[in-house]
Amino acid sequence: MPHITAEIISIGDEMITGARLDTNTQWLSQRLGELGVDVQFHTTVADTLSHNTDVFRIAARRADLVIATGGLGPTRDDLTREAIAESLGRPLQLHEPSLKFIESMFQRRGREMPERNQSQAMFPIGAVPIHNPQGTAPGIDVRAPREDGTQSRIFALPGVPAEMKTMFDETVAPAVLGSNGQRRHIAHHVMKFFGVGESDMEQRLGDMIARDRQPRVGITVSAATISLRIVATGETMEACGSASATTRDEILRKAGEFYFGDGETFEQHHAVVQHLNKVGQRLLLVELGRAAPLGDWFAAVSDEPGFTADVPAFVGGISLANVDDLRQWAGMPADASVETCLSALRQRVSADWVLLVDEYPSLHQTNEHPLPGGEVTFTVAAPDESFPSITQHLGAHPSILHARVAKAGLFWLRKCFPTDPSGV
Amino acid sequence: MPHITAEIISIGDEMITGARLDTNTQWLSQRLGELGVDVQFHTTVADTLSHNTDVFRIAARRADLVIATGGLGPTRDDLTREAIAESLGRPLQLHEPSLKFIESMFQRRGREMPERNQSQAMFPIGAVPIHNPQGTAPGIDVRAPREDGTQSRIFALPGVPAEMKTMFDETVAPAVLGSNGQRRHIAHHVMKFFGVGESDMEQRLGDMIARDRQPRVGITVSAATISLRIVATGETMEACGSASATTRDEILRKAGEFYFGDGETFEQHHAVVQHLNKVGQRLLLVELGRAAPLGDWFAAVSDEPGFTADVPAFVGGISLANVDDLRQWAGMPADASVETCLSALRQRVSADWVLLVDEYPSLHQTNEHPLPGGEVTFTVAAPDESFPSITQHLGAHPSILHARVAKAGLFWLRKCFPTDPSGV
Repeated sequence: MPHITAEIISIGDEMITGARLDTNTQWLSQRLGELGVDVQFHTTVADTLSHNTDVFRIAARRADLVIATGGLGPTRDDLTREAIAESLGRPLQLHEPSLKFIESMFQRRGREMPERNQSQAMFPIGAVPIHNPQGTAPGIDVRAPREDGTQSRIFALPGVPAEMKTMFDETVAPAVLGSNGQRRHIAHHVMKFFGVGESDMEQRLGDMIARDRQPRVGITVSAATISLRIVATGETMEACGSASATTRDEILRKAGEFYFGDGETFEQHHAVVQHLNKVGQRLLLVELGRAAPLGDWFAAVSDEPGFTADVPAFVGGISLANVDDLRQWAGMPADASVETCLSALRQRVSADWVLLVDEYPSLHQTNEHPLPGGEVTFTVAAPDESFPSITQHLGAHPSILHARVAKAGLFWLRKCFPTDPSGV
Repeated sequence: MPHITAEIISIGDEMITGARLDTNTQWLSQRLGELGVDVQFHTTVADTLSHNTDVFRIAARRADLVIATGGLGPTRDDLTREAIAESLGRPLQLHEPSLKFIESMFQRRGREMPERNQSQAMFPIGAVPIHNPQGTAPGIDVRAPREDGTQSRIFALPGVPAEMKTMFDETVAPAVLGSNGQRRHIAHHVMKFFGVGESDMEQRLGDMIARDRQPRVGITVSAATISLRIVATGETMEACGSASATTRDEILRKAGEFYFGDGETFEQHHAVVQHLNKVGQRLLLVELGRAAPLGDWFAAVSDEPGFTADVPAFVGGISLANVDDLRQWAGMPADASVETCLSALRQRVSADWVLLVDEYPSLHQTNEHPLPGGEVTFTVAAPDESFPSITQHLGAHPSILHARVAKAGLFWLRKCFPTDPSGV
């Protein structure tokens, strides 16, 4: 693939004033990077025609590919169509099929199209509309000639993230790949890991994360969970799928012991529920100290398709200040061991497993440790009346410390399961 | 104050590739807006010298004020100093006092300064260093002359958010205000509200949210909590404080029934803990359904200064699937009423109050309601053995629905408290 440079333009007062955080640009930067495009500039501009026009002119001059989001709505604030037309020095003209499509969108909702929505069917001469299956605003695909005889290709997409993402995946990504004449298809596959640091993971993967590798492997970290994103491009979807599967196997050979599942939003608690559903067992969570994220996470899993069961894997969660309170809840004397308490609670609620987090550390920094953190003990009450436990010092940035502790607890619980729940 | 336009520049590969979300620019946009500055452009650029130079040239031409973040570190990737110097056509020169300060930072940590850190004391001729009390990278304050005889003022700050924010508040904001010759001081005050929508709040405030009002009142919404930010500028801090207090009183007259406290991070659960600490009472939380955020929130409050007590207000939290499970936990028969269960649980754990959320709705959309949501019943068990309850239909975007439900529950609990916990 030839070297393609890109600029991403984000349009709207709400971004310029800081009222809304621009996440579209981050998403587009990641996707373009995966396609091998060299993103060089992001520009955000308010809903002002002259500024918009200038921004499109500058972008078309310095980037091969310009992806804009926002400003395609039907109101007077929506100036992207005019701005692109002005920057090209061409008038807008009505595109009849787009108008018919917008009218049909309103008809399906049993409403008449307001006159102002007609503006959404106006395109600069020479532009191709981009189909928007979810909304009334079609996108714009147009080429801007440059002084040196080359041209820049501009794609304008709506600002609504769901519409923008669909249109990028369905239209822009294939077009970018198609500029190479082959490899028009693209397949994404995300693998999840816990228990290994980012630099360790990079070392294990070695050449696999080279930017020019095919399929490409990208690494991102979110609250101590590592995601590896395999992006395969090819002439057919089958070719993408098979290249992706080979890469996946290679990754499992290098870092399989930390792998717990596939999918953008798949986390360890999904892996735990999946395993418990399979073996028909149930889990009680006891969280002590200054947080209780696990109760919230496991409650939410019950709502996700594919994770339900006749007897739900999650019995419930208890959040308490400390072990003394745990003894009181379990109805035990003040000198009772933690194991006795967990055993009593497990029986009372008919759980097979209990995971105790003792305890979520303070978010305050100490002189000893520049990052907040502390000693945390994870104790599991297993169905065979064993109580495997581990004590670790865990520290992290305050914004992710409690999530990190919770995930370390789930990592320990998964190690205590008799079979490897990851299914590797 | 004269009309001042601004551009914000964010520098770094990690932003351009989408590896990191740029939150500095949003923060700066909000702060500049409060100062009455008209932000018109955001630009993000990779760590490439020629692109950085171009970006500074374009920005200085089109904006009166240019605020850049990032690229001030000691490594070869850090190009902001060179880029500004190039864009001005001036060389860099060593600033001895800055070098001494950087050396002293290393000495205090018992380390010798690596030679490459000397680059952080290099400034374009004519620039003024901006003191960085928290790190080794001083900022840059320099004026760029324009063809029409006017000049643009460039401030370059580090990318580390804590350092950037301190330097903006201590140096940039007073300089921006000082460009008017008076009103050099600035005071921020944030008030929090729940139970009222953004447009209702705007209607109540009327002229108070006009952009040219002094002090300025800004409105933002985060997961159904409304923040009003009062920004007062004046010749002395006393004048700012007194203008701010007058505006605060006026707001309370207009929307006092929804007010629950002051401060950027103050939420309703802080107000609840504050009230319970004052009266020496304790709360048990029972959350049913597909989430349990309250347990996590209340556990975290115990870690915050100002919210501790000898007998903590938060007894603990229970997360369960449904009322049947609640009966089992409370040791009650299958036909027991919710009130009986809450009463039994309250006695068992010596709580004064219980809040039951029944239940967190699914995040899936239904045909009836375009936004996910559902009927939620909040039942409070009060110390006088009354059980006030309310049922509401609550719907919201999936990303905030559960938080919104939890907050509606706290709103109901606060209404059940005998004295108004807001202290208005």
